[in-house]
Amino acid sequence: MRPSTIREILKVTAQPDVISFAGGLPAPELFPVAEVRAAADAVLVNEGSQALQYGPSEGYLPLREWIAAEMGARGIAAKREDVLVTNGSQQVLDLAGKLFLDAGDVVLTENPTYLAAIQAFQTFEAKFVGVPTDEHGLIPEALPELIAKHRPKFLYTIPSFQNPTGITLIAERRRKLAEIAARENLWVIEDDPYGKLRYRGEDVAPIKHWDTADRVIYVSTFSKTIAPGFRLGWVVAPAEVFNRMLILKQASDLHTSSFDQRVAFGYLTSGKQPEHLARIRTAYGERFGILDAALREQLPAGYSWTKPEGGMFLWVTGPAELDALKLLERAIGQKVAFVPGRDFFPGDGGKNHLRLNFSNSTPERLREGVRRLAALCRAF
Amino acid sequence: MRPSTIREILKVTAQPDVISFAGGLPAPELFPVAEVRAAADAVLVNEGSQALQYGPSEGYLPLREWIAAEMGARGIAAKREDVLVTNGSQQVLDLAGKLFLDAGDVVLTENPTYLAAIQAFQTFEAKFVGVPTDEHGLIPEALPELIAKHRPKFLYTIPSFQNPTGITLIAERRRKLAEIAARENLWVIEDDPYGKLRYRGEDVAPIKHWDTADRVIYVSTFSKTIAPGFRLGWVVAPAEVFNRMLILKQASDLHTSSFDQRVAFGYLTSGKQPEHLARIRTAYGERFGILDAALREQLPAGYSWTKPEGGMFLWVTGPAELDALKLLERAIGQKVAFVPGRDFFPGDGGKNHLRLNFSNSTPERLREGVRRLAALCRAF
Repeated sequence: MRPSTIREILKVTAQPDVISFAGGLPAPELFPVAEVRAAADAVLVNEGSQALQYGPSEGYLPLREWIAAEMGARGIAAKREDVLVTNGSQQVLDLAGKLFLDAGDVVLTENPTYLAAIQAFQTFEAKFVGVPTDEHGLIPEALPELIAKHRPKFLYTIPSFQNPTGITLIAERRRKLAEIAARENLWVIEDDPYGKLRYRGEDVAPIKHWDTADRVIYVSTFSKTIAPGFRLGWVVAPAEVFNRMLILKQASDLHTSSFDQRVAFGYLTSGKQPEHLARIRTAYGERFGILDAALREQLPAGYSWTKPEGGMFLWVTGPAELDALKLLERAIGQKVAFVPGRDFFPGDGGKNHLRLNFSNSTPERLREGVRRLAALCRAF
Repeated sequence: MRPSTIREILKVTAQPDVISFAGGLPAPELFPVAEVRAAADAVLVNEGSQALQYGPSEGYLPLREWIAAEMGARGIAAKREDVLVTNGSQQVLDLAGKLFLDAGDVVLTENPTYLAAIQAFQTFEAKFVGVPTDEHGLIPEALPELIAKHRPKFLYTIPSFQNPTGITLIAERRRKLAEIAARENLWVIEDDPYGKLRYRGEDVAPIKHWDTADRVIYVSTFSKTIAPGFRLGWVVAPAEVFNRMLILKQASDLHTSSFDQRVAFGYLTSGKQPEHLARIRTAYGERFGILDAALREQLPAGYSWTKPEGGMFLWVTGPAELDALKLLERAIGQKVAFVPGRDFFPGDGGKNHLRLNFSNSTPERLREGVRRLAALCRAF
């Protein structure tokens, strides 16, 4: 078990004079605070006793119903009975680990992948095998050989605006992946925290949209579309997985906050969410544009980076001699921070990579941060 | 993995005409709804962005500080750095399972014990060994032999107003238990959800009060002293345990709701809690008295029960031929419910036992419930 570099960095970046490209924090100035306040007040006035009492392990039924309808809007047929509400999508990874993994079991992932997924599965002593990827995401045709060789318990993938790369799996590959999962009896955990944060291009349906054989476990969260402080996520899973996850959820913490679930439901049904979503999409698109332009102007030759169409991160590849950990040490000295690529690789790798977050800084700070960072890159 | 009977029963007892001695629900009519409403509103007005943002895995620092002071009031020396905030105390059991247990490992418990502790530890395929108990709680002198024979990973105990029996471990045995734990290098998980709910008799300091060798992991919750809907609990643990639990907490769900932590802190520092605690203590004491008197008047010969000085449960022992599961079936037919003893035993046992909750029913319903239940007992 290693504490994540990212959370250590976050402690440094709590200082207001540090410009942080680290973390995966939404823009707090865009949180719908007034709308949440109205929702919280209505919950306590109208249903205070229920909101403060124990609730069902499955989650608050009206919220599960809302989520099922939202699933429909994303191209996934789901009933409220299929929806399990969790403490953020992170908890689904923990439940999946408990359900599927024993020491030495193999998990397939993109490589790099979400660092807290690595941590969640490492708790159960999993081994990681990377699936080959390119600029359109993972390559489904590579799966059968990996499955035959490693007998993985599941594939974990973030198909939209992936963390850390920002890459999106193209539709054709999603269909193909669902097909292969069906044929090979492969469980797929589709983690979709950022799907609603597309600021340009066309929406792509989730992998689960093509999942006729019920092999895909779809995971999402309100952390990016309302606020992460509530710790509200969910999973839509085939019945055999759902039922076992439910028992594990109950043993883990009985249920998710009754109060937060009801406040979120009140907010979601207030009619205010579409406008808020539009506002953050626009803001994140602008911020990506500013960061991208600043990097283009200031980074020296030998650096390239991804151009995500949504989400919160882009992924920088430096020259082979770059050591992002050393760069980070110097960057902290100049009051700018990022996450070095290494943390996103279960094994080796990532030495000359940086993940940059663009959702959590104002345009001015993005520009100033790149100025500081680029100076260090030029001097490296 | 078995879904707990108790939560299945809770579904039936959601019908308003069913009188329920099942569940472990606080009295919702006594929740401090107005005070929580004021606290929630102040949080969103004054620190809305922070309350909705990601927070530290350790918990909200001012709340940890408040808890550390509360620990002092309970006779435990703790600094804020020793306090990890969790999703109810249930999550601590999950973290303990992750940290200590591999398949086949032995856990010592009272027998019967809290059913969701059984579930939490069964997730990690633990084996359970019961420690001999009497009306004063577990018998410390029995431990050395059990430790030598089973090499347990830890002892799990609920020393105050135990769930399900309502029994309290006497002070002399607490001191002795801490001594034996130190000598035998035994980890002790002291689960204390009900300690503040004493309605008669004298407070007894926690086992951890005598823990000079740092072998006791102390667990508590706001579920009974504010409201369970928030899912807020905590653990005070020796540094080596704390540090590993923190990493596991982070991998499990990143952190506990920022919003709920701040609202709870606002409520706790409003000055209103002592009065609320006094109110629920008085009410639960009255309800215990009413239940106890009704049982005395109406249960047939051959039944006995515990007389807890606090908490929410008492434990009924029926004649040897009683089958509490069959009684429950008939009880549901008469619209009264309880939890059969069986669920609280990791192995066999509990056939002729019932757990009765007295916190969640008004005096009228307690009396009517006993009338229905006693009629069935007489006819059994």
